Amino acid sequence: MSHPLDALIALETAPDSAQIPDGPGPRAVTAQTHPAWANMVGPYGGATAAQALAAVTSDPRAQGRPAALTLNFTAPLADGEMRITVDPVRTNRTNQHWTVQIEQGEDVALTGTVLLATARDTFSETEAQPPAVPQPTDVDPVPFAPGLPWTENYDFRMVSGIPGRPSDSSETIMWVSQIQPRAWDHVSLAAASDAFFPRIFARTGKPSPAGTITYTVYFHAGPGELAEQGEHLLCRARASRFHKGLFDQVGHVWGEDGRLLVTTTQLVYFKGV
Amino acid sequence: MSHPLDALIALETAPDSAQIPDGPGPRAVTAQTHPAWANMVGPYGGATAAQALAAVTSDPRAQGRPAALTLNFTAPLADGEMRITVDPVRTNRTNQHWTVQIEQGEDVALTGTVLLATARDTFSETEAQPPAVPQPTDVDPVPFAPGLPWTENYDFRMVSGIPGRPSDSSETIMWVSQIQPRAWDHVSLAAASDAFFPRIFARTGKPSPAGTITYTVYFHAGPGELAEQGEHLLCRARASRFHKGLFDQVGHVWGEDGRLLVTTTQLVYFKGV
Repeated sequence: MSHPLDALIALETAPDSAQIPDGPGPRAVTAQTHPAWANMVGPYGGATAAQALAAVTSDPRAQGRPAALTLNFTAPLADGEMRITVDPVRTNRTNQHWTVQIEQGEDVALTGTVLLATARDTFSETEAQPPAVPQPTDVDPVPFAPGLPWTENYDFRMVSGIPGRPSDSSETIMWVSQIQPRAWDHVSLAAASDAFFPRIFARTGKPSPAGTITYTVYFHAGPGELAEQGEHLLCRARASRFHKGLFDQVGHVWGEDGRLLVTTTQLVYFKGV
Repeated sequence: MSHPLDALIALETAPDSAQIPDGPGPRAVTAQTHPAWANMVGPYGGATAAQALAAVTSDPRAQGRPAALTLNFTAPLADGEMRITVDPVRTNRTNQHWTVQIEQGEDVALTGTVLLATARDTFSETEAQPPAVPQPTDVDPVPFAPGLPWTENYDFRMVSGIPGRPSDSSETIMWVSQIQPRAWDHVSLAAASDAFFPRIFARTGKPSPAGTITYTVYFHAGPGELAEQGEHLLCRARASRFHKGLFDQVGHVWGEDGRLLVTTTQLVYFKGV
């Protein structure tokens, strides 16, 4: 049985895109929503992000490793097939810029951009150090959202900022790992970096209707550094401001050895007073 | 004489876009680089961001106020004319998603997305509080980068993290205002939120070749709240990790009264060991 992530990113070339353009130009693949990644309405956003990124990284024109992505969730995806169109609009010496769009029928469900980059030797230093927390084996896993299919792909060990408890701070710190182990890569990190529940739950202690509108991930490591990581990711996120139906989230994701792998931000729609 | 920002965002409808689509569909405007906004190579990125955002907000189909933008600088812009194509690919009840692209001839110089949103009454709270700093009138303005035209549009009052001094932290805190006052709006904030010099300068104390590749701004306030602000913005930014030719920047911008106006992130290309 294949890993749930690999099942998710099994893409097929769209019949009208069998010929791959030589250089820039749109190419379409088809993907399917997967029941293991279902959220309350439609698929988990991180799953759709993984599919969008995989459509870029699996394109024969891809040069370099994922460095950044910004994806906008424009409309809920229906269960079933989607069409992902990717286009390497600009290839430079050390980076490559892609546009990405997901459609179902006439509806645009996602827009976005992906940046690939080639490693160069430079000054290297991490400023965002991991918080001092217990080892993952010393924190009990908690049922995160029982019955919500996508959450069953991950093991959540909450260190602080637990949903259901109101707090003066929306900050959550947690260890996250995959229930079925799989070496980390950019596509699986794009999925996992969206695993924070909405910050409004951590702040007010109660669930509210909320959904990510725009999702950005900066990847700080190449494929070798990711594959060396242990299974547990240390994840911290906090909102800066809740106001007039929107809040932001600024998050960081470290490997078990303390190396910073991801800086991630979101803007989220919410209801509730 | 018009304000340098207004001169920058004087856009003209492209001849082939005189007919505005009824609903989604691309529409092109032309803009010019402006000598008052020149950077070392090509225009200041914040100036190009203002032009891209103005192309969206001035489109008759725009609904709501800017909530988020992500712009990717794919190639240096040459001095002269550019073509900005915008498309409202999806309009929902409380938000509207746009794509944006800038071209010069056959070259794609910028890709990106813009989110507009309509205000709704909800829970409201700010978590990212402004740092305790002297009032702007108690900090001396410094020549930021003498001779670099775009910097002459702003008054910079550096509180900490001054370029030219190596530091264990890349954090900079500074007051920024417009030399020629103009009430703040989303377009001028999109320009000003890019006014941080590259974090590598603050960390190592020496300039290195560096350029923003992708730039994200989340706007936390509507037009009324922005227009009420005083002229001075309190700006704080820090890198999370420098590695293999890239670093990120996470920044916040507050008004003089302490209200959080912007959360902004960048991924930046740099050289230097």
